[in-house]
Amino acid sequence: MSENIKIAVDAMGGENSPKKVIEGIIVNHKENSNISYNIFGDLEKIEPLLPKNYNKKIFNIVNTKNKILDTDSPLSAAKKGKDTSMWLTIQSVKNNESDIAISAGNTGALFVISKLNLKMIKNIDKPALAALWPNKKNFNIVLDLGLNIECNEKNLIDFSIMGSSLFKSLYPNDNATVALLNIGSEELKGNEVIKKAYQNLQKEVNKNFNFYGYIEGNHIMDGKANVIVTDGFTGNIALKTAEGTADFIIKEFKESMTSNFLGKVSSLINIKNLNKIKKKLDPRLYNGAILIGLDSPVVKSHGSTDHIGFSHSLNVCIKIVKNNLIQKIKDNIIKWE
Amino acid sequence: MSENIKIAVDAMGGENSPKKVIEGIIVNHKENSNISYNIFGDLEKIEPLLPKNYNKKIFNIVNTKNKILDTDSPLSAAKKGKDTSMWLTIQSVKNNESDIAISAGNTGALFVISKLNLKMIKNIDKPALAALWPNKKNFNIVLDLGLNIECNEKNLIDFSIMGSSLFKSLYPNDNATVALLNIGSEELKGNEVIKKAYQNLQKEVNKNFNFYGYIEGNHIMDGKANVIVTDGFTGNIALKTAEGTADFIIKEFKESMTSNFLGKVSSLINIKNLNKIKKKLDPRLYNGAILIGLDSPVVKSHGSTDHIGFSHSLNVCIKIVKNNLIQKIKDNIIKWE
Repeated sequence: MSENIKIAVDAMGGENSPKKVIEGIIVNHKENSNISYNIFGDLEKIEPLLPKNYNKKIFNIVNTKNKILDTDSPLSAAKKGKDTSMWLTIQSVKNNESDIAISAGNTGALFVISKLNLKMIKNIDKPALAALWPNKKNFNIVLDLGLNIECNEKNLIDFSIMGSSLFKSLYPNDNATVALLNIGSEELKGNEVIKKAYQNLQKEVNKNFNFYGYIEGNHIMDGKANVIVTDGFTGNIALKTAEGTADFIIKEFKESMTSNFLGKVSSLINIKNLNKIKKKLDPRLYNGAILIGLDSPVVKSHGSTDHIGFSHSLNVCIKIVKNNLIQKIKDNIIKWE
Repeated sequence: MSENIKIAVDAMGGENSPKKVIEGIIVNHKENSNISYNIFGDLEKIEPLLPKNYNKKIFNIVNTKNKILDTDSPLSAAKKGKDTSMWLTIQSVKNNESDIAISAGNTGALFVISKLNLKMIKNIDKPALAALWPNKKNFNIVLDLGLNIECNEKNLIDFSIMGSSLFKSLYPNDNATVALLNIGSEELKGNEVIKKAYQNLQKEVNKNFNFYGYIEGNHIMDGKANVIVTDGFTGNIALKTAEGTADFIIKEFKESMTSNFLGKVSSLINIKNLNKIKKKLDPRLYNGAILIGLDSPVVKSHGSTDHIGFSHSLNVCIKIVKNNLIQKIKDNIIKWE
């Protein structure tokens, strides 16, 4: 991999774009001087956000007025044509002009446009959407988060290999430990697909991960396993339920902490500590889902994130390229008869 | 329903039994003088926990030494015979000697022993495990939580009817609003079973609930719907993921609140407020899952709860009997062709 990494950026996706995207790029560039950004979107709106006399080799704007909206269905997005900022972003990795693509836009559209343009990695049937999820020690990779409502055992095993490769790309010094999300830890529990995946994962001698076995929802954040594998229906519901629970509790805490004078005073004293937790739970830090299984990596930044969150997603991009995620998957994927 | 409600209690189930069970009964009795308890278990261990000269009509102990262990498989539990405290508890409702049964013991065993002894309500194919889950306004009923890994659309509709009947039994003054747990709020999302259930629930004119539509995991606690319906696999994972997330966040809060001197001081000041949240989130308050679909109600108290939690489960029992849960289900269940 060339040292000068090129990231293809859809400048027009998500809330408050292109402002947050360009500001995110500027923040990211300060910490990563050897990265260049191929930026797709409305030149008139993008250029005023960059410093005057910006380096056009580092910030290479490709002008297009057309863009995908959050309200577009995947089909209408695909029909919108090849001059949308999202399509051009994906085309840039297809044509090897960029090493990785990122968008904060419409997830369904990003998936369809990626699938239309990019090839699957050989021997993988379905791509998956993976995300980072905090645990007691650091972060888990959880996949699939909604692309594949129904999965067979091969899909779950592919997800294990892809998820552990992603984990190793983001945390090169840690070991990947894969667990299958299930409703019990005993071998007998779960549906047939999970049981078959379990049996296969136990048998396989996996070069790039340990197999932990089954894990229940209440142990996802224990940190004993760091790659949590499940079908897209279950994964999506687990992730969103966790988000909803976190929101609920934090809101309850805030309300009760400031509901009377003493509470307000002690909250002020405690503000440093509260900020510490907030930082640990800050969704901007682990912002960015990763579409894996295609022969180029595509990162989806949260539509509602800000420039700091977008910059963190760019850091995820950099790690993925630097640590050769796609090659890791190719090296580890199993060819099934 | 007779005013003198009789509750069949398995005294030997769960951690720290029969102590917590008997203490829970004593707490419950203080608030409910018109309830009597048929208590099944080891007389020698139970009697010393009751006041001397206790009223044997209110606290009617049926002595048995045999009991189901948490380590018993459902099959080995069923084989253990008819003189276990759990079996006798269920038999007591079967024989109309009690109005409802409760145990804090082995969930799988309780389910199998209940199914062996009790009939299904006519036109219901599968029983479900329902539980209370806090929301912004009050509580949701969520079901199924793990009995039925795979469900068809009829099961989900039955769960809607049973769940709303349970909600109306526990909160007679509120309207029940049913939502199907899904990975998106649009009609197109989800698997075939969910889509068919959705279409049916939209068509049906339901006497006892409103239909909200689909709900995503992050909106379970919004309070817009209060009966959340899903298959047992998804429901179990959602519930446990929420538990794990809550544990994680509360631990992080506590650690950071007391990690330095200032934090410790302000936590002391804030202790009243913290206790308020704790109370709202106290799992003992909503302790107790309800097995519904059988022609007698069976309540499962958390194995790890204490006597306060067990007493709350007894309150759930009382409401279910007082408000005629089983009759409500019978009145509303749909006969399918």
